[in-house]
Amino acid sequence: MGIRLGDNQYGKAEVRMVHVDRGTAVHSIKDINYTSQLRGDLESVHTEGDNSKCLPTDTQKNTVYAKAKEWGGVGAIEDFALKMARHFVDEHDYVYGARQEVEEYTWERITTSAGPHDHSFVRNGGEVRNTVVTKDGDKEWVVSGFSGLTVLKSTGSEFHGYPKTKYTTLAETDDRILATDVTARWRYIGTDVDWDKTYASVKSLMLEAFADTHSLALQQTLYEMGKAVLEAHPEIAEVKFSMPNNHHFLVDLSRFGLENPNEVFFAADRPYGKIEAVVERDDAPEAGRAWETVPAFV
Amino acid sequence: MGIRLGDNQYGKAEVRMVHVDRGTAVHSIKDINYTSQLRGDLESVHTEGDNSKCLPTDTQKNTVYAKAKEWGGVGAIEDFALKMARHFVDEHDYVYGARQEVEEYTWERITTSAGPHDHSFVRNGGEVRNTVVTKDGDKEWVVSGFSGLTVLKSTGSEFHGYPKTKYTTLAETDDRILATDVTARWRYIGTDVDWDKTYASVKSLMLEAFADTHSLALQQTLYEMGKAVLEAHPEIAEVKFSMPNNHHFLVDLSRFGLENPNEVFFAADRPYGKIEAVVERDDAPEAGRAWETVPAFV
Amino acid sequence: MGIRLGDNQYGKAEVRMVHVDRGTAVHSIKDINYTSQLRGDLESVHTEGDNSKCLPTDTQKNTVYAKAKEWGGVGAIEDFALKMARHFVDEHDYVYGARQEVEEYTWERITTSAGPHDHSFVRNGGEVRNTVVTKDGDKEWVVSGFSGLTVLKSTGSEFHGYPKTKYTTLAETDDRILATDVTARWRYIGTDVDWDKTYASVKSLMLEAFADTHSLALQQTLYEMGKAVLEAHPEIAEVKFSMPNNHHFLVDLSRFGLENPNEVFFAADRPYGKIEAVVERDDAPEAGRAWETVPAFV
Amino acid sequence: MGIRLGDNQYGKAEVRMVHVDRGTAVHSIKDINYTSQLRGDLESVHTEGDNSKCLPTDTQKNTVYAKAKEWGGVGAIEDFALKMARHFVDEHDYVYGARQEVEEYTWERITTSAGPHDHSFVRNGGEVRNTVVTKDGDKEWVVSGFSGLTVLKSTGSEFHGYPKTKYTTLAETDDRILATDVTARWRYIGTDVDWDKTYASVKSLMLEAFADTHSLALQQTLYEMGKAVLEAHPEIAEVKFSMPNNHHFLVDLSRFGLENPNEVFFAADRPYGKIEAVVERDDAPEAGRAWETVPAFV
Repeated sequence: MGIRLGDNQYGKAEVRMVHVDRGTAVHSIKDINYTSQLRGDLESVHTEGDNSKCLPTDTQKNTVYAKAKEWGGVGAIEDFALKMARHFVDEHDYVYGARQEVEEYTWERITTSAGPHDHSFVRNGGEVRNTVVTKDGDKEWVVSGFSGLTVLKSTGSEFHGYPKTKYTTLAETDDRILATDVTARWRYIGTDVDWDKTYASVKSLMLEAFADTHSLALQQTLYEMGKAVLEAHPEIAEVKFSMPNNHHFLVDLSRFGLENPNEVFFAADRPYGKIEAVVERDDAPEAGRAWETVPAFV
Repeated sequence: MGIRLGDNQYGKAEVRMVHVDRGTAVHSIKDINYTSQLRGDLESVHTEGDNSKCLPTDTQKNTVYAKAKEWGGVGAIEDFALKMARHFVDEHDYVYGARQEVEEYTWERITTSAGPHDHSFVRNGGEVRNTVVTKDGDKEWVVSGFSGLTVLKSTGSEFHGYPKTKYTTLAETDDRILATDVTARWRYIGTDVDWDKTYASVKSLMLEAFADTHSLALQQTLYEMGKAVLEAHPEIAEVKFSMPNNHHFLVDLSRFGLENPNEVFFAADRPYGKIEAVVERDDAPEAGRAWETVPAFV
Repeated sequence: MGIRLGDNQYGKAEVRMVHVDRGTAVHSIKDINYTSQLRGDLESVHTEGDNSKCLPTDTQKNTVYAKAKEWGGVGAIEDFALKMARHFVDEHDYVYGARQEVEEYTWERITTSAGPHDHSFVRNGGEVRNTVVTKDGDKEWVVSGFSGLTVLKSTGSEFHGYPKTKYTTLAETDDRILATDVTARWRYIGTDVDWDKTYASVKSLMLEAFADTHSLALQQTLYEMGKAVLEAHPEIAEVKFSMPNNHHFLVDLSRFGLENPNEVFFAADRPYGKIEAVVERDDAPEAGRAWETVPAFV
Repeated sequence: MGIRLGDNQYGKAEVRMVHVDRGTAVHSIKDINYTSQLRGDLESVHTEGDNSKCLPTDTQKNTVYAKAKEWGGVGAIEDFALKMARHFVDEHDYVYGARQEVEEYTWERITTSAGPHDHSFVRNGGEVRNTVVTKDGDKEWVVSGFSGLTVLKSTGSEFHGYPKTKYTTLAETDDRILATDVTARWRYIGTDVDWDKTYASVKSLMLEAFADTHSLALQQTLYEMGKAVLEAHPEIAEVKFSMPNNHHFLVDLSRFGLENPNEVFFAADRPYGKIEAVVERDDAPEAGRAWETVPAFV
């Protein structure tokens, strides 16, 4: 019997960078949160504190900033993360792999009475786009997604026909509020993708499927959202969802002599339903290490 | 020498309510977070645990839901809070005053390929609108505002000419990023106001002043934002702001043989500047108790 | 009619500092979060962007670090904040006043099989101690307190005898869980105080009063906690409390053929009760500006 | 080519339960956050909205509360989660597997001048203990751990000997602060374990290894912490760690004519180092599905 080091990675997390494109007087900005982690010949740093093959996390941070300048900006976060991963693996023989994660916050141009402003922006508080790029030697995987897309249907949702047990108290309903915060991540089949265009399309397809599905279960809505994406995007192998069922309970107003025909709801915090599933192509290539370090999914 | 009860109030905080207007097949929703607190004849509940003049917080919560139905919806949050305050004070002789606070979350209708959807919405993650209504007997005050309006200028901001001391290390600059999260609250002179229209105008005026002010100090930008509001809105007596200076530090890339002409920035978390000020009319009526329980302002 | 600048202050918020006392091989550490704000001759910075009397927030930050070294450590946070306030007001003729706020995080020494360790610590996750020192010319006020002291009684709490209205649904009870997160702030009469000793005593007295009061209302418990402090500490003029009633609802298990004699509870998030009150001496000196910028109290 | 449902699970998240043991007048309390998710014959709920094999999340929630009463309390969270998983899988032929996660918050008895109080408690704000039990047919896995154990060494930490590249700016040091928030999870080999006793021992061993390791890299400290656990606990197969390097930067006081011999530090927020690794037995049994849904680990 012995004790040994298993899987491991290390790096610098949450490097906050804003890049300003000043090519013309009409500026544009890119606001990201970058996490770089590397894998490699790291046995001795763990067992002996020998750092000779441990590229400091501080250097990884510096590289993020330097490359944003060298490469003339960030571009699509997937491209930036792929190039960073290749830089780290190709330039250092003791680095075998990389996990590069990026979050992107979106800003809109402020519009004044004189029109869109050249260099003033207001942050859009909607969903946060992200990507996790994994590189293992020559192999590369890209998983992209978003978190925090909060949606609600005020009707068009039912829930009934479920098994009843000793512990069942829930009443069946043919009209309820359906509300969720969509967290979605999808795995790309290759790396030759128009990332920004695909992202916009995926988000739009998901919103449309959420709106247009007459829902008999949140699982059904989830599945329709994934199916819509896979049907339209052959470059995507699978979509994973984590979607809470944000309960809105109809308030019993009969105690006060009032009817409540699905008008007044209590929006509850906890507990909430938690629905997670993968929608996938049956002929998708193997996922390899793509999902290994992606948090909190089935 | 004796010990006694001083100012006090009590109630139910963060009653989460979603109201659906189902008047037609095109629904609209109102999503609020309601906090009711009352003041009154509360000596004996503190000193003896005598609850005979203590309207339970649970009852206050029930009233929020019931009134949303009785009054046919919520309407402007200021109107709803005023009517609630009057209800509590007018209906219970042991209730002398009320503090009613409301936050409102905004949602947008989802647009699909078929156009705007009847009953599907996506939450707008921007600023959160709020109001604090204070009632003391016959007197009423309305303070409205918002939090979380995050804005940034990529140029058009300078900072120099400040006093230098033994502890000064900051370099002067004539071109920096200016970024802040605007928290603003303004006091209305009366209660006969078109609340929703004024809110939209105030926000728009603040964004425009932020964008159009060539800034020599964040204080100057703040003042211009307040002045623009007071000039356009005689129904507003004063505006209070709390605005962090969200530092964006230019990364020194010269260490890597690179120039950085205001392109690559580190967005810092803490510490941050904290700028707070009131912009007011010199002939405004007294504030009374309007601000007493409004959090964290000068 | 004119528009003018009202009250204002500015500075650097949340300067995070850890000071290590290395006087002997047995180290001790002080971990604080410092917010400095100044008031003074600040009209022109707001109206014209003239910074000539605006000591930069960056300089305020540097001063925090430098003074910790010059003064040989931090000591009690009240002393440190007082000395900082005096430094800013005394050294700069354009600075008339100061608001200095400090939070302190506590750490405990790690104990190993060899005994207490010389230089290894584990953070104590309990309440966060704080102080707000306000200086206005020669006048000085100290308000100290804490947040996040979470307590619970599993019995010894009743609630009944309250007024019943049309909107009442709450059942009376003679045995419930009473739980709250105590936020307390107390105003000192002078500045010649043994701050650390008093803090420990106040916290202890509050815990004891919470435990020993058979509660008929959370307001009663609050009052007893304040009274215990004022009776023991003549150097304290008043105590302000903000205490949520963290509801623990008895789960109805009768639906499953089970009794539930106050054993199984649902701990709710929102809404919650919100109880706020001041307990004060009837002969206390005027509060002056002590409370002006202390957040969220009656 | 077809589209299909992949892995999936669903349930009720964050069921907050406090159980009071009232067996004697000296109460004890158990405060947990329970998340139940099930796996089973769920194809048709996703593709057709057919709920006939979908045990409602509401029923799962009810079961948590009912079982706490039926079983006379919660006991060790691992035991409770195992029994819950067996209940769900054994009682419903359409349920094939379960993921049951529990967090536990610890409380201490309040001590007054009369000694330990019978029924009053103060929450201990330290680390949060947790477990994830996975059941797949007859197979069962238990992963336990904690999050939020924040530790710091004021000396006894070095960092040097790392590779230098074009992007290196970090200075080597033989004396720095080492600080981290330990998140650890360990996999048990079986289910016949004294869970509470093992938990206490694991935490104690980790704290001691953190304190006693003279650190040349955070990775080395991490490895020593894992090794100490595996050497003492044959019932544990592997330990996974995620440990940020919470940077404390020495403040340059030479600009103010002051020395700073490792006394005054700036505690930074972001970015931070992020170190993740597994320490494992070389003869450990296969992990199976134990880690599949455990968030954010290598």
